[in-house]
Amino acid sequence: MLDRIRIVLIGTSHPGNIGAAARAMKTMGLSQLAVVAPRCDPRDGEAFARSSGAEDILEAMQQFETLEAAVTDCTLVVGASARSRTLPWPLCSPRELSASLPGELSGSDTGLALVFGREDVGLSNSELQRCHRHVHIPTSEHYSSLNLAAAVQVLAYECRQAWLTTTPVTSPEPFGVEWDNPLASHADTERLFEHLERTLINIGFHDPDNPRQLMARLRRLLLRSRMDSMELNILRGILTRIERHGDPNGNDHPR
Amino acid sequence: MLDRIRIVLIGTSHPGNIGAAARAMKTMGLSQLAVVAPRCDPRDGEAFARSSGAEDILEAMQQFETLEAAVTDCTLVVGASARSRTLPWPLCSPRELSASLPGELSGSDTGLALVFGREDVGLSNSELQRCHRHVHIPTSEHYSSLNLAAAVQVLAYECRQAWLTTTPVTSPEPFGVEWDNPLASHADTERLFEHLERTLINIGFHDPDNPRQLMARLRRLLLRSRMDSMELNILRGILTRIERHGDPNGNDHPR
Repeated sequence: MLDRIRIVLIGTSHPGNIGAAARAMKTMGLSQLAVVAPRCDPRDGEAFARSSGAEDILEAMQQFETLEAAVTDCTLVVGASARSRTLPWPLCSPRELSASLPGELSGSDTGLALVFGREDVGLSNSELQRCHRHVHIPTSEHYSSLNLAAAVQVLAYECRQAWLTTTPVTSPEPFGVEWDNPLASHADTERLFEHLERTLINIGFHDPDNPRQLMARLRRLLLRSRMDSMELNILRGILTRIERHGDPNGNDHPR
Repeated sequence: MLDRIRIVLIGTSHPGNIGAAARAMKTMGLSQLAVVAPRCDPRDGEAFARSSGAEDILEAMQQFETLEAAVTDCTLVVGASARSRTLPWPLCSPRELSASLPGELSGSDTGLALVFGREDVGLSNSELQRCHRHVHIPTSEHYSSLNLAAAVQVLAYECRQAWLTTTPVTSPEPFGVEWDNPLASHADTERLFEHLERTLINIGFHDPDNPRQLMARLRRLLLRSRMDSMELNILRGILTRIERHGDPNGNDHPR
């Protein structure tokens, strides 16, 4: 289970924090580290110094230009978020995340990405809106300045707790019942959102110059439901049909 | 409760670790820090640098010559221990410690000391034997090199969890966060499904004479997400637009 958990660090400024995150991961048995558009050399000497024996994780670390690319094959994307947002998003505590993991990661093609933002400004709204859920580490109301590696440590610890409590699971999460289709991948889900946005523009429902929160709300709605692959295909089929329907040259409704 | 918990660091070598421990404590609402026979200047500049805003904890920090002196007034002394000992001692997990705290700290003169050893060799047998219990943070069998501040972070987090569970929570159902719109009613939801089915028939996607599981799957998808009223209205708006879009007499796309 732990080998299906990827720690994704976005826009990290200090290589020492990447090294300390690698160390934190390794103490808890995690191994997959990805950095996205780091604002430093992620394999700087300081990273290796702070990793303190977790060099193997730094050496196997993957680097990506975008969050998209880093989580393409993941079925559950969870963003670590300190701030409460203007648009509320499904939120869980580290404990709740931990409790859900044995079920979430029981399927054969499942994968979790835990996404951490920049030291100074965290994750952007756009990044947060690519997540199924947010996880908030409950910090003091008077001082919430959790170091990046410390946040990784706490969530990695909760992941390990989940793994330790895993007895052979028959518990068929995430929906409390054995499901009939595999969950949709992140990449397929993003293609659906692109298709959806295109279609809404074409039919004149969505004005990209005045987007308000439309796409964010539709993302929130569909990400919350954890689409399976067949559901996703049905929605894509509907969108394709809508496009042809309104197109006088379409094949389905020639006129 | 959190003000009755003292973090005790014995024989620390690196002032940066003392500062990072102070930061970890403060994020979780702990304030009592004590150092015992430090092997460095515990108020070195590096300690303040790594404390990152938790200077108040460093300034109020107490210093003692012996563990004895540091825990005199505590009713429960728990040593953080990485190693298993030749002489077995009562041992708990961080979770078990957390679960016991509301009871342990309910009396008026109660106090907990959480004792952490040296970076290199941990706590001595003599120190461990001054503890009521040991707490072991479960680390990977392949790599147990938990940084001192990371160990403080994990146990401080568990202390805060204990405190949060004793504090009345305004249950933030159903998404773990206070939501911005009321959930859709059953009746409105059913009207949406009627509208959806009508639209899918109109655009030729759905054949009511050969329905297969289409509507059931769409129901399952949307019901699972617990639509709020604004999301439902957006979907109704999209359906209305789709109908007009394909209708040559529609108002939105006259042709």
